[in-house]
Parts: sequence; structure tokens; C-alpha cells
Amino acid sequence: MKITVVGAGGMGSRFALALHGAGFDVTLVDGWQANIDAIRKDGLQAELNGEHVVAHLPIYSPQEIDQSGVSADLIVAFTKSNQLGGMFEQIRPIIHKDTYVLCLLNGIGHEDVLERFVPKDHLILGITMWTAGMTGPGHVVLNGSGEVELQNFAPAGEPFALDVVTAFEKAGLNPKYSQNVKYSIWRKACVNGTLNSLCALLDCNIGELGKTAQAETFLREIIAEFAAVATHEGLDLDQEEIYQHVAATFTANIAGHYPSMHQDLVVNHRLTEIDFINGAVVRKGEKYGVATPHNALLTQLIHAKEQLIGAK
Amino acid sequence: MKITVVGAGGMGSRFALALHGAGFDVTLVDGWQANIDAIRKDGLQAELNGEHVVAHLPIYSPQEIDQSGVSADLIVAFTKSNQLGGMFEQIRPIIHKDTYVLCLLNGIGHEDVLERFVPKDHLILGITMWTAGMTGPGHVVLNGSGEVELQNFAPAGEPFALDVVTAFEKAGLNPKYSQNVKYSIWRKACVNGTLNSLCALLDCNIGELGKTAQAETFLREIIAEFAAVATHEGLDLDQEEIYQHVAATFTANIAGHYPSMHQDLVVNHRLTEIDFINGAVVRKGEKYGVATPHNALLTQLIHAKEQLIGAK
Repeated sequence: MKITVVGAGGMGSRFALALHGAGFDVTLVDGWQANIDAIRKDGLQAELNGEHVVAHLPIYSPQEIDQSGVSADLIVAFTKSNQLGGMFEQIRPIIHKDTYVLCLLNGIGHEDVLERFVPKDHLILGITMWTAGMTGPGHVVLNGSGEVELQNFAPAGEPFALDVVTAFEKAGLNPKYSQNVKYSIWRKACVNGTLNSLCALLDCNIGELGKTAQAETFLREIIAEFAAVATHEGLDLDQEEIYQHVAATFTANIAGHYPSMHQDLVVNHRLTEIDFINGAVVRKGEKYGVATPHNALLTQLIHAKEQLIGAK
Repeated sequence: MKITVVGAGGMGSRFALALHGAGFDVTLVDGWQANIDAIRKDGLQAELNGEHVVAHLPIYSPQEIDQSGVSADLIVAFTKSNQLGGMFEQIRPIIHKDTYVLCLLNGIGHEDVLERFVPKDHLILGITMWTAGMTGPGHVVLNGSGEVELQNFAPAGEPFALDVVTAFEKAGLNPKYSQNVKYSIWRKACVNGTLNSLCALLDCNIGELGKTAQAETFLREIIAEFAAVATHEGLDLDQEEIYQHVAATFTANIAGHYPSMHQDLVVNHRLTEIDFINGAVVRKGEKYGVATPHNALLTQLIHAKEQLIGAK
């Protein structure tokens, strides 16, 4: 299986390293020239649970991909959410009729973007609990353990999705073939749609958010709107279970953690992925005639803050 | 007319100085001992449009008021909103059957608190566009000009309310007898309920807020909820006029100004008056069965931020 990982940030690098280590033919595509240069010169360098690992993997910019001769059986998408469509426009030359795309990005509705590039039955969706961090061009830090849950988006994609599960097993990525990945994606989006947006807006970590008197109200109201919209997509979200799932993080070992949106907005002054989390629920709510005022205001507040701090 | 100004902060001091200067018998009541000590020792000191002014006014703590011999014809309330009820509990000894209370505080619903202490027809409500700042115990800075708009809460209070207008005219406070002060109070609360809460939450000044792409949406959605609730109090708020009124501040000479809630929360880490502005609309909305999700979330977010920064 020839695999192209699109987006060689922390998570893309983690998956590329694991698959490369299991013997697969792995190619990287990335849009950051300094990252490309560093990986070409010194290889992809990782601190993997304290051990220094180097892998020499081919890497191309989207502009170079046309001349690269790369042809992918599987493309694993690990771009930023707001760069997904633009990146796939550029890498069209490596997508042939047998190419499958696996999307493990946080957020809702990425299938709408990816369907412009591959048929539904060549689309595999999933979530992952692996984490990763980038410390500079070509350098990533990979600690802890994780899992992957995935499923073909259309029935005909099942055999290949199962092949991906087998490949990920070989690579030690702890995959699980899901019977209802869409539910899992929405459930995870509820986690990001509460913790990420609130911690970014209030400038706090997960445990601090959990200690405010408003935490339960925030979670329940946001999750209720997710659930109301999800109904129109055939999903019956278990609001109580999801609330308990999110609330459990307040006292878990990740309580001291600042979610990625906080890091994007507050620490790095970058544009956030809010439009693919709370914002996606607002757009779908408008489509289905479901009111989503809490998610709408949160999305607007995050966007206002992006502008106020000059996020790029 | 014997006047007691309750709350000798910036605004209370401004009104006390003006009324004292016009020859009225003015007494101060304040809860901050350092302020009392400073005013007793050196008088109330003001920088009034660049000129140094000192006034020696009697001042009492709420605990001393019982023994003070003070008897008020008019009490002007200039406490913090959340201290209004507590302060009036303590100053009951100076409230007799002919005492009127004038409340010029920002926010909605102060009459509900004050009705516990005086009959409706001894209650005068209003708004003021005067500003004031405090630089330390006994020291205030008073720049620019302003106005007062006031009206008796019940018809029988009109003669005394007109007397107050006459007194305030003598004191140069630019009073106007209002035909519909409740409308003016709600209209001003729309200003505070948009600019104050948003600038505090987003940590920005009025002009910066106005430059965000979300500004118009924020204003219109918040004002719409104020208007929906106000309908149940017999008020037909002109949403478009109020929107234009608030939006005009974005490019006015106060665009560089940080609203008082920003100063309370972000600069001084004090508890805010959100419960008397957006929070009051939420409470009234619950009472009337009107949904106020934007005001509710804003109120919750401000309260969460108060806790996160340890506001007192």
C-alpha cells in the first residue's frame, strides 16, 4: 500500500513515522517550505517517548507534486481543517481512480470537502486519540499512546477500510473498525466544541474551566445544540453520556492541558478551526432550521478575538 | 433640600460636589474606610476640568449612620449595582416617610431593590451621561460635560422629581425631566449590554470592537433580545435606532475608551455589574418565557472569567 500523508505537522509526522517503520512506502506532502527543507536535509526527527528517531522520507510541496511521480493508494489527510480543500485542489495529480482518502481531522463536515475529490466509497472517515507536537521545522515530539477509529463513508469502501485497519495494526497505531464512525466524529466534536472554544475564549486550561460555576451549563447547552442538529443527520447523540465524557476531562490527567485552539489563538496568534467545530454546527443548523445561538455566539466571539489579536 | 449621596466614588463625588457648590446641604455615605478617612482629613479633592477643587463634606460609613443624626430629603444612589440593596439595608435609619430616592445607576431593575425601602411614589429613576474617575481615596478626576434624565417612578412623585430637576439645574448638572425614563434606561442598558460585556470579554476598547466583522451581528442579536423582553414590560424599543446609537460609538471620540466593565474585570480584577445588565435581561426573559441565549451565554462567560482571574 503506497501511502501519502498530506500535512507533515505533528500528527501527520506521527502517522508517517509509524507506517514507514512498519515497512510501508510513505510519502509526505506539506505546504511549509522550511519544514520541507529541514526534512530533506536531515530527515524527519522525532522525540518518540524520549527516544530520538530519524526517518528519511520523500517530501514534496503541493507545487512539486505534479512532477513527483507519486501515486497514492491511500492519502491520509492531516492538514489544518481550513487548508484541507485548498491542499486537495493542489494534489489532484496524485489522486487516481483507485485512491482512497482517510480523514482523521477534528471537526464536522470534512466529507463535504473531500467528496469533491474522490467518490463517497473511496472516502474513509475517522477520529484519533493520538497526540503530537511540533517544535520546529522537521522536528516533532511524540509522547504517550492513542487509538484510531475509522470506517468507510459508503458501504462499498469497507474492504479497503479493513485493509487500512490491518496496515495501521502493523504500524502500532491501535486502529479499530467502527460500526458508526459518524457518531464518534460528532461525539468528539462535542469535546472540541466545548473545551477548545471555551478555553481559547476564556484563556484557561481544561481543569480551570471545569472549576468555574458555569462549566456544566456551558457544556450542556453547547452539546444540546450539537444534538439537535445531529438529529437531522440521522444521529441520536446521547447528551448525558457525552456531557459526562467531557466533564470527566476536568479532573483527568489532561486537566492541566490547554486545548489546541487555545494554543492556536492565545499562544501562537493563529486562525482557529472554529468554523469546522462550533461553526459547522451553526451552518448545519441554518440548513435544517435548528437554532444554535450558543454555538453561533461562541463562533463569532472566537472570530472577533482572532481579528483583535491579528491572528493569521 | 437635604441630600445624602450614597457611594462616594467618582460619580457620587461629582454629584456631591456640584450640589454642595450650589449651596445644598450634602452628606456622603461610603463603605470604603480609606476613602472616609481621606475625605475627613483633607476633604474631597477633585481635578475638575484641570482645576483643583476641595470640598469639606460630612461623610459616614453605613455603620455610623445610625448615630449621625443625618436625615435625608433626597438620597442619591451611586453605589455599585451589586451593593445597592446591602447599602440601603444599612442606611435605613436615615430613610423617613418623606425621603425620596434617586437612582442613576446603569442597568435594569434597580427599582425592584429600592421598592423594599421606599414607596414607589418616592422613587425617582434616571440615567446620566456624566462620567467620573477615581484615582485614590478621597481623590476624583472629573472631565467633560454630561446630562441627567430623570422621572418619578409613580405619578404622585412628579412634584418632587421636578424639585430635583430644579436643584440639579442650580448645580449645573444639566437635568431633563423625562416623559419615559424607563425607555431611556433600557436604551442605555442596550449600550452597556453590548459595549461593556463584549469589550470586557474580548479585552478591547470600543473602537477595536467596532472594527471586528462580527460587531454588527453582536449588537443586533443582543439588542433584539433586550427588545423582546422589554415588550413584556410595555416598552417598544426601536431596535434600529438603538443599534445606530450604539454603532455610532465605534467611530466617536470615545472609540478609544475601555468601558467600565473592562476596567472592573480586566484591569482591576473586580466583580462586574453583568447581573444588572445582560443578566437582568436573562432573569426577566425567564420570567416572561422569552429566550435570551446570547445574553445568557455572555453573562455566564463574564462570570466564568471573574472566577478565573479571582475577581473580588
